[in-house]
Amino acid sequence: MSLKQSLHTLVVSTKGRGFTDATGELQRWLSQVGANEGLLTVFIRHTSASLIVQENADPSVRSDLERVFAKLAPDGDPMFEHDAEGPDDMPAHVRSALTQTQLSIPVRAGKAQLGTWQALYVWEHRHSPHRRELALHYLGT
Amino acid sequence: MSLKQSLHTLVVSTKGRGFTDATGELQRWLSQVGANEGLLTVFIRHTSASLIVQENADPSVRSDLERVFAKLAPDGDPMFEHDAEGPDDMPAHVRSALTQTQLSIPVRAGKAQLGTWQALYVWEHRHSPHRRELALHYLGT
Amino acid sequence: MSLKQSLHTLVVSTKGRGFTDATGELQRWLSQVGANEGLLTVFIRHTSASLIVQENADPSVRSDLERVFAKLAPDGDPMFEHDAEGPDDMPAHVRSALTQTQLSIPVRAGKAQLGTWQALYVWEHRHSPHRRELALHYLGT
Repeated sequence: MSLKQSLHTLVVSTKGRGFTDATGELQRWLSQVGANEGLLTVFIRHTSASLIVQENADPSVRSDLERVFAKLAPDGDPMFEHDAEGPDDMPAHVRSALTQTQLSIPVRAGKAQLGTWQALYVWEHRHSPHRRELALHYLGT
Repeated sequence: MSLKQSLHTLVVSTKGRGFTDATGELQRWLSQVGANEGLLTVFIRHTSASLIVQENADPSVRSDLERVFAKLAPDGDPMFEHDAEGPDDMPAHVRSALTQTQLSIPVRAGKAQLGTWQALYVWEHRHSPHRRELALHYLGT
Repeated sequence: MSLKQSLHTLVVSTKGRGFTDATGELQRWLSQVGANEGLLTVFIRHTSASLIVQENADPSVRSDLERVFAKLAPDGDPMFEHDAEGPDDMPAHVRSALTQTQLSIPVRAGKAQLGTWQALYVWEHRHSPHRRELALHYLGT
């Protein structure tokens, strides 16, 4: 079967710092474009929110991750010079640097090949809600 | 030459915490599917093991990385709530968050274009051996 | 329109530890190969320099990132065994492990779909200038 590609911008509304599961919306888009076998790429167009594949079962994994990253880059840390948008500005950039801006996932039989316990999350690093754009690309049959 | 794609699931058996070099098996798969020029994508279907491209020469690079990550996310750290599978459960998720779930590598003349000193490792973060699934995708001539 | 691919090796000269904005050169290559809609993949063939998408506006974001990573992996830290190339040898590998070796960006109307405030940087982790090779792949129309 000949290869085709599709592109789209998916907007995800976050509720402030924390994880928004985008797996369902990504899967819906794959269905809309008639994906069968191929590769899905997700790119977040921001540097104060990022992407992460993590466990979708016990929510304490996510709260523990929040705690670890809050320790790695504490809000309002006096070591940060960049605080134009407040005490969570630079910590958001550090969290973004340490996680993912882009993820690609193979697709088979129309389904992104995430493992049983995996979900793809948009991780908002700012405290206020934001509208985050994901640039999507699909290539395959 | 017209483009084609191939998909596969590669199983890597790990011996517990540490690095398993997957470069040879990935290269063998590229040969099997007759890859010439294109893009290889590797996606690990787990959140307590991850992917990393690192130096393939001096093994002390890997032991130093183990030491750094053991300090970033110590086993049994009382700050972790999630310990259903033991003291190495949540540290494994943190190590996965800080490294890679997916990597794509350009392919030329049938060879993944890793640098001279690079290998692609599966980094097992749990202490016990595991069977880890890598979803592979190749696109090219 | 039928799909095509292009591959290239882009050499970036760094001035020692710090960020080199590669966005312009990547965009020039996309123009040269006549990219319209597709996916650009960038892979760095080194383990002591890495890739990162970060804010392109206030330079204090980059100096703060330098400070955070210098703290995460201090030059000459006695915990490191691997120091064959000097006190910045192992810290460079740690910084590479914590950031990106590869990034893929969707392309529309010939432009990499970075957000308004995003640039793609080569982050040199060694103190001396280096010649860094980026393996590029473009797939699309």
